[in-house]
Amino acid sequence: MGESPITDISEALATKGKVITCRAAVAWSPGTPLTIENVEVECPQKMEVRVKILYTSICHTDLTSWLGENEAQRAYPRIFGHEASGVVESVGEGVEDLKEGDHVIPVFNGECGSCAYCQSDKTNQCEKYRVNPMKSTMFGDGKTRISIKGQPVYHFLNTSTFVEYTVLDAGCLVKIDPSAALDKMSLLSCGVTTGVGAVWNDANVKEGETVAVFGLGAIGLAAIQGAKIRGASRIIGIDINQDKIDLGREMGMTDFVNPKELDKPVHEVINGMVKGGVDYSFECVGNLDVLRQAFLSTRDGWGVTVMIGIHTSPRFLPFHPMELFSGRKMVGSVFGGVKCKTHIPSIVKKCVNGTLKLDAFITHELPFDEINKAFKLLEEGKSLRCLLHF
Amino acid sequence: MGESPITDISEALATKGKVITCRAAVAWSPGTPLTIENVEVECPQKMEVRVKILYTSICHTDLTSWLGENEAQRAYPRIFGHEASGVVESVGEGVEDLKEGDHVIPVFNGECGSCAYCQSDKTNQCEKYRVNPMKSTMFGDGKTRISIKGQPVYHFLNTSTFVEYTVLDAGCLVKIDPSAALDKMSLLSCGVTTGVGAVWNDANVKEGETVAVFGLGAIGLAAIQGAKIRGASRIIGIDINQDKIDLGREMGMTDFVNPKELDKPVHEVINGMVKGGVDYSFECVGNLDVLRQAFLSTRDGWGVTVMIGIHTSPRFLPFHPMELFSGRKMVGSVFGGVKCKTHIPSIVKKCVNGTLKLDAFITHELPFDEINKAFKLLEEGKSLRCLLHF
Ligand SMILES: NC(=O)c1ccc[n+]([C@@H]2O[C@H](COP(=O)([O-])OP(=O)(O)OC[C@H]3O[C@@H](n4cnc5c(N)ncnc54)[C@H](O)[C@@H]3O)[C@@H](O)[C@H]2O)c1
Ligand SMILES: NC(=O)c1ccc[n+]([C@@H]2O[C@H](COP(=O)([O-])OP(=O)(O)OC[C@H]3O[C@@H](n4cnc5c(N)ncnc54)[C@H](O)[C@@H]3O)[C@@H](O)[C@H]2O)c1
Ligand SMILES: [Zn+2]
Ligand SMILES: [Zn+2]
Ligand SMILES: [Zn+2]
Ligand SMILES: [Zn+2]
Repeated sequence: MGESPITDISEALATKGKVITCRAAVAWSPGTPLTIENVEVECPQKMEVRVKILYTSICHTDLTSWLGENEAQRAYPRIFGHEASGVVESVGEGVEDLKEGDHVIPVFNGECGSCAYCQSDKTNQCEKYRVNPMKSTMFGDGKTRISIKGQPVYHFLNTSTFVEYTVLDAGCLVKIDPSAALDKMSLLSCGVTTGVGAVWNDANVKEGETVAVFGLGAIGLAAIQGAKIRGASRIIGIDINQDKIDLGREMGMTDFVNPKELDKPVHEVINGMVKGGVDYSFECVGNLDVLRQAFLSTRDGWGVTVMIGIHTSPRFLPFHPMELFSGRKMVGSVFGGVKCKTHIPSIVKKCVNGTLKLDAFITHELPFDEINKAFKLLEEGKSLRCLLHF
Repeated sequence: MGESPITDISEALATKGKVITCRAAVAWSPGTPLTIENVEVECPQKMEVRVKILYTSICHTDLTSWLGENEAQRAYPRIFGHEASGVVESVGEGVEDLKEGDHVIPVFNGECGSCAYCQSDKTNQCEKYRVNPMKSTMFGDGKTRISIKGQPVYHFLNTSTFVEYTVLDAGCLVKIDPSAALDKMSLLSCGVTTGVGAVWNDANVKEGETVAVFGLGAIGLAAIQGAKIRGASRIIGIDINQDKIDLGREMGMTDFVNPKELDKPVHEVINGMVKGGVDYSFECVGNLDVLRQAFLSTRDGWGVTVMIGIHTSPRFLPFHPMELFSGRKMVGSVFGGVKCKTHIPSIVKKCVNGTLKLDAFITHELPFDEINKAFKLLEEGKSLRCLLHF
């Protein structure tokens, strides 16, 4: 780990222009274990890039999608995965900002750079490459670039990284400073960027302000570290898993609350710790009751709740409209408000210079073939991120 | 109308220090017609002011509260009314910023000036004098200053203006430039300030941006005028009452939509008029289905819906949490985000110099005794504001 694991350019040249047969972890139906299969990966088409994935990790969103709670989103066989790092194998026609051998990370929330959304500083949701859970094919022709014995294999979240080689839209790839340890860059592909971005962009926490972070997975812990870097005066972590306390403290958490050990609502405890409530709360679980707690934990007048968790239940928001008259606000955060190509290079710089520390997020490492074990570790709350090596 | 109707100082001196017996419109139970009665109005106590009300008007919030849809808020007999203008009759101990004869308007959302909320520029909700629909007595001693034959008469929204003399906390009174026509200043007491404030503060509409205003009562029309003053390029008004079209246009509305005459959802029509949706929408009705339409009428990425309407139904917000991931935001607006003592003087200036026009809001005038007729006019959608004269 740590050294630049760039592949041999000659290897790239050997595959360029050809269909590549390689290993993938294929999901055949919701919740059933992935199987390692040989798949065929086509060449990148116009404005597409084929990437050799070197590392990939599992985010809770992969877990949720694999469990397939939303009927409409089902498309099988499918290759999940959206947190990864690798090198460009070859580029399709028209791609100008990327070339063979570049270190890259895929990003599910792309940036075309030229649409009205990319041109606005009010949003990070590109018209073309924004996250769309219904999308399971390429933007260009609505087809897949991966197949297994002639059967199309669906893409996932503009990325699909549980495979040795994958094809993405160039807008969904960010070039990374080659001096950064490529293995850990996988974390910037989703989890860590989302967590720190939510604090730096969506909330814009300032020095001396107070925050509460609900759910201490990779996202929540990254939010804690982001708040610490901004100089927040009080950083309260909330998790029902007591084991999260040490990692939380390591990241900068000042106080820990385990809702299971309380005899009153979490928000009352938090309002007691920070009189009147915190300035910002972050929901990093994907649970509506937690979202309500997070909302009530902020102070009236100007508290802001940043919703990061993916809510798969059909339930509507558990708030009465008049509760918005308290002055509390709630905003949804997609990829931490980060425009991938514009903002990630500066986050990489913070990793290279040691401001943002990624080591502690990688709690486990396994060979790619043991991906089902990695899923289990996340599901059981035992891992933050398990880095899979190809 | 228009001339300064200041009362004689000698009249004030004659009542100072004494209980005043005067006329009031008393509500005895939810929804039953108000009766004109003689009530006793005590002297102002510490940090309180007694005001001679000269004009009062009826806001939809009076109507909603009188209809008493929320059990917990009921307190009878009660004096409603929170939109008014008058002159200071006498001040209690410690009041320094107001004196006898000052032109004033009462504001249900007061400003003490010294609490953490008043000191913050992120909120207009004073810790002491914020709006509290449960409050029906004075802040100082939890008692009422008005009684009828010995029976206490409850206050309403820090104000109670349907009475010739009323007692308020000094924090809930704003001194008005005496050169402003005092009759029309009644509108700044709630409706017009709320509407323009929502546009100027909560949304902060900029030149060239697009807005949709749902509900063209006084609040909605004031929002339209506020958007016009800010140079909005498109101002779409939406109302089920076709009669609102002329006033809407007079205020600056560029397009009118009557949902009753459509065969598809309002937001689809609006998304067609302004491709992708408007930058801001304002809900000025108090109806959750309208709130949802308003939300969907804004563009994804950065649309903001400002909720102004009072929602008395127990229904929760009709949004799925994932809909917040569209980048659309929703905020509640109390009194248009206006800090009454700090901001109203500059709004008065805009009225005096003709930038903000108040005349068209006063669609009717009646003597105070005909207050039930004025309620009816508002309920039937025939009036914007009916100015009642004492
Ligand atoms: N909005 C985005 O762009 C975005 C990006 C990535 C992930 N996500 C979502 O963020 C959430 C977190 O992802 P992750 O990878 O960190 O997940 P994770 O599974 O690693 O962490 C979730 C944490 O929440 C805790 N938790 C569960 N129930 C709780 C409760 N009732 N109260 C308090 N804590 C509770 C768990 O113990 C765990 O520590 C997921 O919903 C994921 O889908 C959103
Ligand atoms: N948040 C605050 O500080 C604040 C202050 C004042 C008033 N309010 C609230 O603002 C709202 C408006 O007050 P107002 O005095 O202007 O009321 P109003 O009765 O004069 O106007 C309401 C308008 O909404 C229209 N309407 C009704 N149903 C509609 C529908 N389904 N679609 C479109 N339009 C519809 C009516 O025809 C009418 O023109 C009320 O809910 C009031 O309680 C809030
Ligand atoms: Zn993710
Ligand atoms: Zn774009
Ligand atoms: Zn009002
Ligand atoms: Zn105050």
